[in-house]
Amino acid sequence: MIYRLGYAKLNVSDLEKSLDFYEKTLGFIKTKQEGKTAYLRAVEEFDQYSLILHEDRDNVCLHHFGLRVSSEEALDEIKQKNEELGVEMEEVKDEDLGRVIKIVTPSGHPVAFYHHSPQVNVYHGENRDVILPMRRSHLQNGVPPVRIDHMNIRVPNVNKEWDFWKNFGFSMSEYVEGDNENERYAAWLRREPFTHDIALVYKEVASLHHVAFIVDGVTGVVKTADILADAGYRDSIEYGPGRHGVSNAFFLYIKDPDGHRIEIYADDYKRDLDQEPIGWTQEAYEKNGRLWWGSEVPASFKETTPINKNFIKKDELVK
Amino acid sequence: MIYRLGYAKLNVSDLEKSLDFYEKTLGFIKTKQEGKTAYLRAVEEFDQYSLILHEDRDNVCLHHFGLRVSSEEALDEIKQKNEELGVEMEEVKDEDLGRVIKIVTPSGHPVAFYHHSPQVNVYHGENRDVILPMRRSHLQNGVPPVRIDHMNIRVPNVNKEWDFWKNFGFSMSEYVEGDNENERYAAWLRREPFTHDIALVYKEVASLHHVAFIVDGVTGVVKTADILADAGYRDSIEYGPGRHGVSNAFFLYIKDPDGHRIEIYADDYKRDLDQEPIGWTQEAYEKNGRLWWGSEVPASFKETTPINKNFIKKDELVK
Amino acid sequence: MIYRLGYAKLNVSDLEKSLDFYEKTLGFIKTKQEGKTAYLRAVEEFDQYSLILHEDRDNVCLHHFGLRVSSEEALDEIKQKNEELGVEMEEVKDEDLGRVIKIVTPSGHPVAFYHHSPQVNVYHGENRDVILPMRRSHLQNGVPPVRIDHMNIRVPNVNKEWDFWKNFGFSMSEYVEGDNENERYAAWLRREPFTHDIALVYKEVASLHHVAFIVDGVTGVVKTADILADAGYRDSIEYGPGRHGVSNAFFLYIKDPDGHRIEIYADDYKRDLDQEPIGWTQEAYEKNGRLWWGSEVPASFKETTPINKNFIKKDELVK
Amino acid sequence: MIYRLGYAKLNVSDLEKSLDFYEKTLGFIKTKQEGKTAYLRAVEEFDQYSLILHEDRDNVCLHHFGLRVSSEEALDEIKQKNEELGVEMEEVKDEDLGRVIKIVTPSGHPVAFYHHSPQVNVYHGENRDVILPMRRSHLQNGVPPVRIDHMNIRVPNVNKEWDFWKNFGFSMSEYVEGDNENERYAAWLRREPFTHDIALVYKEVASLHHVAFIVDGVTGVVKTADILADAGYRDSIEYGPGRHGVSNAFFLYIKDPDGHRIEIYADDYKRDLDQEPIGWTQEAYEKNGRLWWGSEVPASFKETTPINKNFIKKDELVK
Repeated sequence: MIYRLGYAKLNVSDLEKSLDFYEKTLGFIKTKQEGKTAYLRAVEEFDQYSLILHEDRDNVCLHHFGLRVSSEEALDEIKQKNEELGVEMEEVKDEDLGRVIKIVTPSGHPVAFYHHSPQVNVYHGENRDVILPMRRSHLQNGVPPVRIDHMNIRVPNVNKEWDFWKNFGFSMSEYVEGDNENERYAAWLRREPFTHDIALVYKEVASLHHVAFIVDGVTGVVKTADILADAGYRDSIEYGPGRHGVSNAFFLYIKDPDGHRIEIYADDYKRDLDQEPIGWTQEAYEKNGRLWWGSEVPASFKETTPINKNFIKKDELVK
Repeated sequence: MIYRLGYAKLNVSDLEKSLDFYEKTLGFIKTKQEGKTAYLRAVEEFDQYSLILHEDRDNVCLHHFGLRVSSEEALDEIKQKNEELGVEMEEVKDEDLGRVIKIVTPSGHPVAFYHHSPQVNVYHGENRDVILPMRRSHLQNGVPPVRIDHMNIRVPNVNKEWDFWKNFGFSMSEYVEGDNENERYAAWLRREPFTHDIALVYKEVASLHHVAFIVDGVTGVVKTADILADAGYRDSIEYGPGRHGVSNAFFLYIKDPDGHRIEIYADDYKRDLDQEPIGWTQEAYEKNGRLWWGSEVPASFKETTPINKNFIKKDELVK
Repeated sequence: MIYRLGYAKLNVSDLEKSLDFYEKTLGFIKTKQEGKTAYLRAVEEFDQYSLILHEDRDNVCLHHFGLRVSSEEALDEIKQKNEELGVEMEEVKDEDLGRVIKIVTPSGHPVAFYHHSPQVNVYHGENRDVILPMRRSHLQNGVPPVRIDHMNIRVPNVNKEWDFWKNFGFSMSEYVEGDNENERYAAWLRREPFTHDIALVYKEVASLHHVAFIVDGVTGVVKTADILADAGYRDSIEYGPGRHGVSNAFFLYIKDPDGHRIEIYADDYKRDLDQEPIGWTQEAYEKNGRLWWGSEVPASFKETTPINKNFIKKDELVK
Repeated sequence: MIYRLGYAKLNVSDLEKSLDFYEKTLGFIKTKQEGKTAYLRAVEEFDQYSLILHEDRDNVCLHHFGLRVSSEEALDEIKQKNEELGVEMEEVKDEDLGRVIKIVTPSGHPVAFYHHSPQVNVYHGENRDVILPMRRSHLQNGVPPVRIDHMNIRVPNVNKEWDFWKNFGFSMSEYVEGDNENERYAAWLRREPFTHDIALVYKEVASLHHVAFIVDGVTGVVKTADILADAGYRDSIEYGPGRHGVSNAFFLYIKDPDGHRIEIYADDYKRDLDQEPIGWTQEAYEKNGRLWWGSEVPASFKETTPINKNFIKKDELVK
């Protein structure tokens, strides 16, 4: 069984610049750096990292994203299912994550499945005092995200990609109708009882629209814009804050130094996985779904980040 | 598979008084009333109700709580497992919930399993506009809870009750050690990746400590105290606000007109179900676990609400 | 001595529609209605009203705004000063406010000075229990404004209007330079140690840009947008939320059913009246002053509300 | 005319420890340190400092507090008035504040009056860009207070001290009745239109109860408790959070390493200086005034900090 989105790995052109943005300004916690690769986590996460930044100026892209599964046996089943589906696949051994099943989805998206995930230590001192990860607020800076939430990826055929993910137990929370019955304009997929781990939106070329991180409510969203503007990153604020009708998200879209878009996110809702998807007609989506209220979507919002074309057959995985 | 805690049913001595507290003051939404039984939901819930109040002045108690399961087949499996375990059980047909499996746990707690759950309609108007349940804020009053979170029940033997719930896929998120290896003082159990759906804490007599509802962050917790005091319910504020070490909860404990304790709750964390439980020694728990910071626990906090002794063999279930 | 902005009176075309907006949706408290005139207050105000709505469909406009002065003697001084300045003036007796000095400023803005202001009763019951106005949260609805903050008016000559207000002890907190030394594009004036009671911004025709009300922080601003959209007033949200550089305001601009613009406002700062004004060059204002961050100003933002041309010589004043 | 409370100077036993508490943990900004004296400000203040910490382990006490007046002429008037009143007084020249009038009030409290106050620079770069003090959030840490609010001092005779302060234009916002007509148990005095710059509460020995700083709303209050507990200062949290009836304050009382009490404060209200004081009977105060809701006042809350006995005749003033 797949649990959830675990991490995103982004290739960046200048690691130092990226760390100034993510670590120094926003307040992600860097748990490890190995050469040109930095591992970051949001402040309420138990995993050692949910965001990996890798400097590769010749291949700035979404390197891949990782989905955590419930056990090694679950990993076997996922491997077998991918074999049945004839998906491009590779198994590698990662120093941190152990066995990793790498695939390229029908749309071309690079995805890794893994079970093992190094955890933040919660026991401290000789008396085994417990300190939860979020109870280190005195060591935080910025307006740190609380945890990773979802990937919003663009695909040339939403239904086809949805057919693929259905094989792995994904549930659709909401969707937008397409021009005819066999199409959808967008679909929000999840393994956790929220609106999405992976959102699929139509675009001719498969690409990354954004990675979303949850912050501490409406205030966290606004303070993120404040701190970016205060720190000289005003131009990194692309769009928002505003509220989506779909997902009820209170959003702010920002762009990192390489133009990777990050959604700063609050107010998602909870709904059981077995419930029927909520369907928006194109008309309803245009009227209230894309935007419940807020400024109009800027033209730049159509831009996306390329995805890694060399995910399989490369020697390294997460590092 | 069990999804989660679905609802709690409380017997009350005076329904009108209870509705003044829960509906008029706190802002729960009453979706239905049938005679002396009222069905309420929190504002971000898709289920029609998560709190049922039933007037029965001769039997003021926790009537039972309901756990929602993923399918009718899952209900069959749960029935079979309970049969194997030799648990007192009864199957009934409920007008709203359909098939309901009623049991009494080894400690004596009254529990219902069900799959079907009537949902809030999200489609409106002839154009099938979508309106999510939480986007009705103009119709709300009070400082309404967002959703039900957990039951905190008292049991004479924590490990024995935990052994029972393990059969149904529950995971332990945290626990407090007892006086010897075979005991635990408390254990937090969950089916969702948060700290708990059901908390078990030691007490000689099985009883209810509290039902918890999540509100909109720290502000929601404080505003709940404000509105209670403003409305003349100052004496209903028993304890808090403060922060627990266990679960990271920012809490406020309040008491309804019958003395049923409700936890108003924010800042729970998210952690995968397969992770090892976090264990607190008695010493660590006394030092930081019970209370990360805040006023000392009042004496009244040991008081509990009785549980229904006549759950099985009664004709009615949820109504 | 003038204390502060006390109230704004707006002429509206349909009082019922306006009350649906201000009272039913936003949550202003109506303290009195006499025929086609309604008196409203924000929830933390001790004054009986800060917003007066008067139905006059033939003269939809800013009727006038009122400035509260410290004593009857202060009123005498203000009257004398206006006489010296040769300003169009009239003294009337108001049922609520007592003596009222009505004037038209050099730019043509209708202003009333008054000392007496009926207060919300804070003593309750035979034991003279004290209940402060804001401790009635159980009786509130909507996302009620906390208090009136300022008027933003347009004037054809900022310096000339500033010269007038200087006579009454106003201090300038910030300003924007104009095209030459003798001009200013905008000036923020105050009698209280915040950024403004009255903002003056250049426009050929004297008119009202907006009346501002403070809400409960950043959350209050966002919830105001939410409740408007939820209640069907999405088109009433004109601009924001965002942050101004000038005044540090976290803003949302909304329009009432007649197009009167209301600023929903948080995060103003405090600074002594004797401090030198903070001066923005045109360049600095364009870069960061108008907007510290947020979506670009919409074209509609240039629109203004007419001001009352018949303020003096009318028989009635506040009612 | 006196504007407001400007700063408090506290003698501490170990400056390094105090800075770890105020600067490193809470997030006050240190603007200057000279030997064993550190000058700190809260983040939205334009003054260079509002809190002065001076290491003097033989005289740990409230050194004095400073009231800012509107002009040098106002300072002359205050000097003259104090002379008339026969108050112990001294004029000194301070490097930062210029002329300073030092007095000891009838109860024995050490107070300084000053006009000049060094300001935070708001102009930056060669283009004279404006950056307001609070728009440096990327340089902040902790949960920084926004601004100083008030002194709560204990006096053996509330009415006598009130008679003194009346001479300087102070207004009483609220009071608690004493055992007979000529006494008051407590009185809240202000020069700004909030509840208090100086609170007087009865105690046999004149002393300091607390200095209050405003934080960013209810959330700021709770986060202050969080960060203190997280940083190992849990024992510094003395009382709260809760809400006072008097002043409507949402409060948290904390103690610095020397036991000086600081109130972390939100939700004060605004009311004109000329309004009649709000009077609480002893009964009403006991019932709802001291505590609108929250845990009972702890015994330690009666403890106070000594005040400086050597304020006049000392060579130095602020440093």
